[in-house]
Parts: sequence; C-alpha cells; structure tokens
Amino acid sequence: MEHKAPIKITPIGSGNWDSAIALIVGRNAQKHDDHFAVEVLMWVHEEKVNGKRLTEIINTQHENVKYLPDKKLPVNVIAVADLVTACRDSDILVFVTPHQFVENVCTQLKGRLKKDALAISRIKGFLVDKKEGTIRLVSEAIRELLNIDVAVLMRANVAQDVANEEFSTATIGYKGRKEMWPILKKLFESESFRVNLTEDSNTVELCGGLKNIVACAAGFADGFGYGSNTKAAIIRLGLLEIIIFIELFYHCSNIRTYFESCGIADLIASCTSGRNRKICEAFVKTRKSIEELEREMLNGQSVQGPITAEAVFIMLNKHDMLSRFPLFVVVHKICQKELSPSLLIECLRQCKNKLPNNQVGIQLSLVIN
Amino acid sequence: MEHKAPIKITPIGSGNWDSAIALIVGRNAQKHDDHFAVEVLMWVHEEKVNGKRLTEIINTQHENVKYLPDKKLPVNVIAVADLVTACRDSDILVFVTPHQFVENVCTQLKGRLKKDALAISRIKGFLVDKKEGTIRLVSEAIRELLNIDVAVLMRANVAQDVANEEFSTATIGYKGRKEMWPILKKLFESESFRVNLTEDSNTVELCGGLKNIVACAAGFADGFGYGSNTKAAIIRLGLLEIIIFIELFYHCSNIRTYFESCGIADLIASCTSGRNRKICEAFVKTRKSIEELEREMLNGQSVQGPITAEAVFIMLNKHDMLSRFPLFVVVHKICQKELSPSLLIECLRQCKNKLPNNQVGIQLSLVIN
Repeated sequence: MEHKAPIKITPIGSGNWDSAIALIVGRNAQKHDDHFAVEVLMWVHEEKVNGKRLTEIINTQHENVKYLPDKKLPVNVIAVADLVTACRDSDILVFVTPHQFVENVCTQLKGRLKKDALAISRIKGFLVDKKEGTIRLVSEAIRELLNIDVAVLMRANVAQDVANEEFSTATIGYKGRKEMWPILKKLFESESFRVNLTEDSNTVELCGGLKNIVACAAGFADGFGYGSNTKAAIIRLGLLEIIIFIELFYHCSNIRTYFESCGIADLIASCTSGRNRKICEAFVKTRKSIEELEREMLNGQSVQGPITAEAVFIMLNKHDMLSRFPLFVVVHKICQKELSPSLLIECLRQCKNKLPNNQVGIQLSLVIN
Repeated sequence: MEHKAPIKITPIGSGNWDSAIALIVGRNAQKHDDHFAVEVLMWVHEEKVNGKRLTEIINTQHENVKYLPDKKLPVNVIAVADLVTACRDSDILVFVTPHQFVENVCTQLKGRLKKDALAISRIKGFLVDKKEGTIRLVSEAIRELLNIDVAVLMRANVAQDVANEEFSTATIGYKGRKEMWPILKKLFESESFRVNLTEDSNTVELCGGLKNIVACAAGFADGFGYGSNTKAAIIRLGLLEIIIFIELFYHCSNIRTYFESCGIADLIASCTSGRNRKICEAFVKTRKSIEELEREMLNGQSVQGPITAEAVFIMLNKHDMLSRFPLFVVVHKICQKELSPSLLIECLRQCKNKLPNNQVGIQLSLVIN
C-alpha cells in the first residue's frame, strides 16, 4: 500500500454496529486527514424507511434513523448503495455485516479490489462446514475469497454504549504488515475507545465468537436469579473452555491475549449485558424458544450465542471431544431444548477443567523494567 | 501430623464469615468422620447479645444470631470463649478474624499449639510495616509468630451466598505437606462449594487482598452509572495491575493461578457485589466519607479496599513505583478525598499497562491430552 496517497476507508454494512463504526472512523478520517481520505464511503444495503431510501436519509440527515437513531454521523460519511462502487478504490474495508452475508459480499467483490487492500472484520461468529464438521473463521473465509490481508477487531457487543462514548477498550489482531499497526490504531481509537494490537489474530477472533456461548450460560443463571458468585464461576469456567478450545484446534495462542480486552473484558461485559445474556435470561423466565424471543425482543435479528454453540457442538462431536467442554455442550443442549436449563449448575459442579500444565512446566516470569 | 488420630478443627473467630466457615467445616467433620474429629471447637470472642452470652446462644440455639442470623450451625460446632482452650489440641486452625487482630491472637497462642498444627487463613488484606514501607502477608505473620505451616483459602466475599449454598468456587494455596491437600479439600468442599488447590500460595493470598482495591474502582464507576463496557475495562486493567504488582514484589507467580477462582472469579464477583463496591458506589452518590458510610451501612465494620489501597500506596511510594499502578493509586487518592472520583476515567484513559513479554518470549503451549 502506498501511504503517501490518503488511505481510503469503507465500512461495509449499515446495521447498528456498522453505523457505530462509521461514526468512529468518519471522525478519525477527519481528525487524521494527513493519513486518511476525509470522505468515507459506507456501503448501505438499500431499503426504504418511511418511504425514503436509507442512503438518501443518511446523506441528507446524517443519521441512520433505522439502526442507530439519535446519533449524528459525521458529514464526511457518504452512504453508497452499490457495493463495488463503495469498495473498489478502498484501502481498508471494514466488515461489520452479519456473518451469513460474508460469502455473498466477498463473491461480489472478488477481483474488484485494490491488490493491497486490507480487510478488517469485526464479525463475531463462525462459518460452519457441516459436511466436514468444522468451523471456519470469518477472517479465513474473507482471506481466501478475496486474497487480501485480513485483520480482526473485537470488542464487547454493546453498540449503543460505543456510540454514547462510554469508556471502553478493544483489541485488533493482525499478523500482516507491521507498518499498518499505527494506522489501524489511528483509525479506530478515540478518547473514550482504547485499542491494543496483537499479532495473535486467530485468538482474538475466536475469543470474540466463543464468549457468546458463555454469555448464554450467564443469561440462564440470571434467569434463575443466581448471585454474583455463581456468575463469576460461570465466567471463569467459560474462559477455561475458550482457552482449551483454542489450544486444541488452533494451537500456539499467546496466553497474554486472554488478558487483552478481547479476552476477559469482552467476556465480562457480554455476561453482564448484551443480547445473548438477555435473550437467555428470558428463555429461562418465559420458557419460550430462542426463535420466539428473537422475534419478540430483537425484531427477528438473531443472537450469535446459540448459533455459535451449535457450530462448536458439531465440531466437538465430530472430534469426539464433547466431554471436555461441559459448559459449551450444556448451553447448546439447553438452547435446543434437549436439556432443562436447571441442569446448568449440575454441569458446572462436574466441571473439572483446569489450565493444564504446559510442556516444559514454565512458570511465567515477566520482565518488569 | 499423625493422621490415624482424627483431625481436630478450630475456626478462630465468630463474625459472619467465621460462622459461614464453621457451618461448612462442621458439616464436613460429620460427613468425613473417618478423617475428622466430629466435635469442632469454634473460638468465639465473648460478648453479650440481648443479655445472653454469645457462646451460650450458639451452643443452645445453634445459631450465631448476631453475625449470621437465620442459619443453623451443625450441633457438633461448639463455641468456646477461651482461645487457648479452643486451639491447644487442634490440628487445623482456620483464621477468619479481621487482619488487625491476627498478631494479638497469635501472641496468645504462641508455644501453646501442637507442633505440626496447620493454620489456614482466609483473611484478606495485608499488615503494613509503615517504617519499612512494605506490606506483609498475613500468612507470613502467622508463620513467623507461631512457627507452623500456613495455607490460605480465598474466595469471593459474599458470606450470605456461601451460607445459602449458591454454587461457587474457591482456591486454597499451600506449599507445604502434599498429603494435606486431599484433607483440606475434604474439609472445605461441598456440593455447592468447589475447591481447587495450588502451591502458588502467595499469589492466591495477594489476589485476595488486591482485588478489593479494584472493587472500589468498580464501585466508583457504578456510582456514576457507567455501563458494563467501562466496568469490564476496569476489571481488566485492575487484573493487570494485580499481576504486575505480584510479579514485581513477589516474583515467580504461576500465570495459571490467575485463572483459578482466586484470580478472575473472585475479582469479578467482588466488582459485581460485595461491600467494597457497595460502599464506593455510595461514596460517589452521597459524597460522604468512607468512615461515615461504614458507620451507616456496615455497623462500623471496615471495608478492606481503602485500607489495602493505602498499604499498597505506601509500598509503591517507597519504591518509587506510583506511576506504574495508576488504578491502585487513583483509588487510594479518591478514598482519601485527595482526588475527585470523576478523575477515575481520566486515569483509565492513560493506563498503558499490558502484560510485558517474558524473558524468553514464551508462547504458552498447553498440553491437551
């Protein structure tokens, strides 16, 4: 990438998260106009809102009235309905679309992007190859389909809080060109939004997806009115399963990554608020199905936790590993109504997971200068 | 210790936590009467409650009506007012007294205990040598004063939840005789209370004390009504300061210990409920002093967080390390009313802490069998 020319940014998508991201990168493109092209084209899936086109509303009222109402977008964010037009000159493509649309978006973009464009995905959740019984990372899919570098951005799932500029932190995972690190930091960081970078990109992405399963368990516990000790135990046992899952199937994660925001902080936030927790709390209290609750509480949008739990269950089952992941498995079975949520605690009582010793029995000794 | 004779247990103290512990070990002494002497003598600091002696109330009504009302203690728990009588034949002494009484209790017991007696401390908080500017672990003080083995038991600070038998977990740290591990597990574990053991005893104890400082920061954030992203960021930054503090002053902790209950789980529970959080939330909302709030909300009992923050501040100041621990320092200064709590977030914005790389750049590789 030639950095003397201003770097062009394109958020792909127009949901609430996309709009929150457009708000941040739009402001940063203005603020750092020595690095970025000020004009930020945002791909908006065209639809009619109160008889008007959504692109037109965004470009005149500077507000995504449907998905992020009452938040003004910067005027330099321009909504574009045609995907290829929005993306073809872009240097950094920010993927925020739901994961089920990724393959379709990439197919349309294939061969039509700048060669050294960089994609950054904040999509949580995995693609599933049901035949193979494996999950596939969204970043892997984008990389293979578009043949470009892919970074991931993970943070807790509360779009409104980000738009409200409450202090929070996030993690970017990117193994590629190191010269892009300060640029990515400049693009996403703000006074209230702190970003750390790590090369351990797969771990960052996997934490972002797997934590939603744990958030479901936290929601079930809230449904029963259990106290904070029980919730804390669930979060801890969930984190252990996350770490063991990543080690088992992806190898060589860096233990430090779990201490980044994408690890414990996002896990805690998702188990305290966020949609997965909320829907699963209602699941226990109302005994309705997840699908019914999504219709009633989220206008039919889906929560990622149950879908991710299913994908992970398929993979664990295929590899004969179900017994190693009691929490992940019980969440899936409760969501499918195969088990009563009252069995959650019974499962936790039997969790024997500890972080295993590593091969050389290292006691991590940190260098403090 | 000769294990053919039944092992005698003595809880030392009669507050709410002592009583919750007496409840657990009393039951387990009955349940495992092949290991333990069924009769559990509990040292009770004698006082009059409604004109009756507290020991008499406990021994007739089997309830600590003052500090843990409405919870029946097992009948095999016998309250004893004389400290030496309660302790001299004991094999395992459970210290639950407030940390300021430890030295006095030990002085009375010195030379009057069985030689191979084991002390187990669940006291959170540190002793301070103001002249030296250092903190001293309670376990170290007991070990030095009594010249016996000392283990520590740490768990989240919600006595009522434990007495209510909500599912929760705890960690015992003990470096000494390995044959005592299964005995300690039998003594404290129950259906709803899971216990793991580790040799990394100092880290377990330090986590138990330091987390209360972080819980104060969480309370300040709650006082301002900040959301879960901010709280999660505080917990993460607090955990990093805990780890760096322990590495800096105690060296060679095992990174796995932070994934035990004493690490992340107790930290999360204390930042979600517990006294420190509650008092500090009220501190922001009412602008009263910590002492006033303790009188009003806790019958004059003290919260550990502000005292621990002061002890740590003295130590950091002495070692010229204040700038490395922005969260610990800001909590102390807010509690002392030297800084406005509104500066908490400003401090967090400037936190640059990351877990430093260790000397040999190890990527922790776990063995999954």
